[in-house]
Amino acid sequence: MAKKCIKVAVTGAAGQIGYALLFRIASGQMFGSEAEVELSLLELEKALPALSGVIMELEDCAFPLLKSIKATSNPNEAFKDIDWALLVGSVPRKDGMERSDLLKINGGVFIEQGKAIAQNAKKDCRVLVVGNPCNTNAFIAKSVASAINPKNFFAMTMLDQNRAVAQLSQKSGVSVCEVKNVAIWGNHSATQFPDFYHAKIQGRPVTEVIKDFPWLENTFIESVQKRGAAIIKARGASSAASAANAVVDTVRNIIQPTPSGDFFSVAVASDGSYGIPQGLIFGFPIKSDGSNWEIVQGLEHNTFAKNKIKITLDELLLEKEAIQALI
Amino acid sequence: MAKKCIKVAVTGAAGQIGYALLFRIASGQMFGSEAEVELSLLELEKALPALSGVIMELEDCAFPLLKSIKATSNPNEAFKDIDWALLVGSVPRKDGMERSDLLKINGGVFIEQGKAIAQNAKKDCRVLVVGNPCNTNAFIAKSVASAINPKNFFAMTMLDQNRAVAQLSQKSGVSVCEVKNVAIWGNHSATQFPDFYHAKIQGRPVTEVIKDFPWLENTFIESVQKRGAAIIKARGASSAASAANAVVDTVRNIIQPTPSGDFFSVAVASDGSYGIPQGLIFGFPIKSDGSNWEIVQGLEHNTFAKNKIKITLDELLLEKEAIQALI
Repeated sequence: MAKKCIKVAVTGAAGQIGYALLFRIASGQMFGSEAEVELSLLELEKALPALSGVIMELEDCAFPLLKSIKATSNPNEAFKDIDWALLVGSVPRKDGMERSDLLKINGGVFIEQGKAIAQNAKKDCRVLVVGNPCNTNAFIAKSVASAINPKNFFAMTMLDQNRAVAQLSQKSGVSVCEVKNVAIWGNHSATQFPDFYHAKIQGRPVTEVIKDFPWLENTFIESVQKRGAAIIKARGASSAASAANAVVDTVRNIIQPTPSGDFFSVAVASDGSYGIPQGLIFGFPIKSDGSNWEIVQGLEHNTFAKNKIKITLDELLLEKEAIQALI
Repeated sequence: MAKKCIKVAVTGAAGQIGYALLFRIASGQMFGSEAEVELSLLELEKALPALSGVIMELEDCAFPLLKSIKATSNPNEAFKDIDWALLVGSVPRKDGMERSDLLKINGGVFIEQGKAIAQNAKKDCRVLVVGNPCNTNAFIAKSVASAINPKNFFAMTMLDQNRAVAQLSQKSGVSVCEVKNVAIWGNHSATQFPDFYHAKIQGRPVTEVIKDFPWLENTFIESVQKRGAAIIKARGASSAASAANAVVDTVRNIIQPTPSGDFFSVAVASDGSYGIPQGLIFGFPIKSDGSNWEIVQGLEHNTFAKNKIKITLDELLLEKEAIQALI
C-alpha cells in the first residue's frame, strides 16, 4: 500500500531553528514511519543560496521518507496544497526597535503568509506559528485567512512546557516521563504562566511533592519565563534545537490522541473558556483525539493563578491593540 | 522490565556536528525506543560554558529516553564505563598549516583519547571516529588502545555513502530506498572511491541503469568527493546536520543486522582483504549480524576501480607514515 504523503511548508527554513527542524521532520520523527513527507521551504530571496546548501544536506541524508524538497521566496508557491504550515521565520527585534514596531513589522509578514495560506493550502491545512511574537502572529494569520477554520491555527508554547517539565523533574528527582499535566497559560513571552498547580508528579499534585512554595511561585516560574535568555547567555546563540524539538512535539501532540487524563500545551483561538476573550490566541491545556482538539475544561484557578493569567492576558490584549489597524 | 541503558561519549560536543547529533541520539534515533541513553560530553575547557547551554537545551526537550548528561574536559571522566565513543571533535586545518602538521596535532588528541578509552571504557566499547582526518585518527586511537578489540574501531564514510546514494537516485530518477550496495573504499577524503560498479538500482547494476559512463567515472565520483566543499560554499558553513545523520546511520548499521544481500560503508581495520595492509583503517563494504561485522568478500575490481583504490590507499599509507613516530 502506498504510504500517505504529507506536504509541509516551513518558513525561515535557512535559519537556526529551521536547520534543526528540517532533519527531524525528514527523518520521520514528526509524522511517523508510515508517512512520506514533501518539504516546501520558504525563505527571503537573500537567504535562498544558504537554503540551497541546507537542501544539499537534506539530500545527503538519503532519508527514506523524504519524497521531495522545494525552495522558494514566494509564499503562494510555498503554501500550495500543503497540509501543514510551520511558520518559523519572523523578524527579530533589533536595537532601538520598540515592541510595537516589532509587532507591526511581523504583522506585515503574517498578513501576507495568512492570505497565501488561505489561497493556496488545502482547506484543512493546519498552521503552527513559532516565529515570535507567536501568539499575535498566529492571531494575525488567522484573522486574514478566513477560508481556514480558526481551530487550525496554533502558536507554540511546547518549549515552555518542556522547560517546565525539566525544572519540575530536576527539583523532585523524578524522570521527565513522570511529570504530566503541565499547562502554559497565555502568551509565549516572559508573562506566560507555567501552571504548577494542575501539574502532576508521579500522579500526585506537584504541590504535594514539592512543598517549597517560594521556589514554585518565584524561582520555577521565572526560570521557565527567562530560560531563553539564560540559554543565549550560555551558548552565545538562541535556543534552536530545543525549539525545533518542541515543534516536533507540538505537531505529534495535535495529531495523536492525548493519553487519558493528560493534556498538553499549545496556544489556540479562545472559545471564551476561562474568561479569555473569544478569538484571542491564548495558551491553554489541550487534549486531542488525533483529529480534533479541545480546551480542557473545569480547572479551578486560585488567586495567585488568576493574577498570573490576568498579567499575560493584558499583554496579549495590548499586542492585539497594536496590530488591530493592520487586519 | 527496565530498559537497557547505553552510555555514549561524544567529543566536540559543543561544535556544530555535536549540536546536530546530540538531539538525535537523545530522541532515541540512534539506539531505538527500547534503550535509555546516558550522554557523556567531552569538550575543551574553553568550550564548557557553551556546552552548558547545549545541555540546558537537551534538558528542555524533556526526552523520555535521556537518562543523564554529564560534561567534562577530562577524557578519563568522559570515557568512564562507556559503551560507545563518538569522536566527533578534531582540530581543523588552519591557514598555512601543512597536512602533515594537521595529522600530528590531531595525532596528539587521538593518542590521549585512545588511551583514556582503553583505561576507562567498557572492554567491549565501540569507537566511531568522525573528526578528520578520521581514518588516521581512528588508526592512532586503535594503536594506543590495545585493551580494546581492534574490530571495535570505526571511521565514518557513511556521509559519503549517503551522498553517493543521493546522486545515483537523482540521476536515475528513483527513490533513495531503491539504491543499495554503495561501498566507499579507502580514505574519507577527496581520494575516496565511491564504488558505482557494485551498487544497485532497483536490484540491477548501476551500470545497466545509468549508461552515461563519463558521468559515473567523473562527475559522480567528483561530486561525492567534493560535496563537502560545495556545501561550505552554499551554506557558508560545513556539513553538520548531514554529518550527524551519518553518525546515526553508521551506529544503526553496525548494531542492526544488515538486510540480506546489502552492505554498508564504514572504515575498519583491514584484515588484509582486497590487498589492503592489515591494521590500516580503510573504507570497505561491511555487513553486520547485529553483534559482529565482517568485510564483504569476493567483489571483483576492474582496472578503473583498482586504480582508484590504489590512489586512496597510497594517501592513507602516507598519512600513516606521517604519524608513525607518534605511536
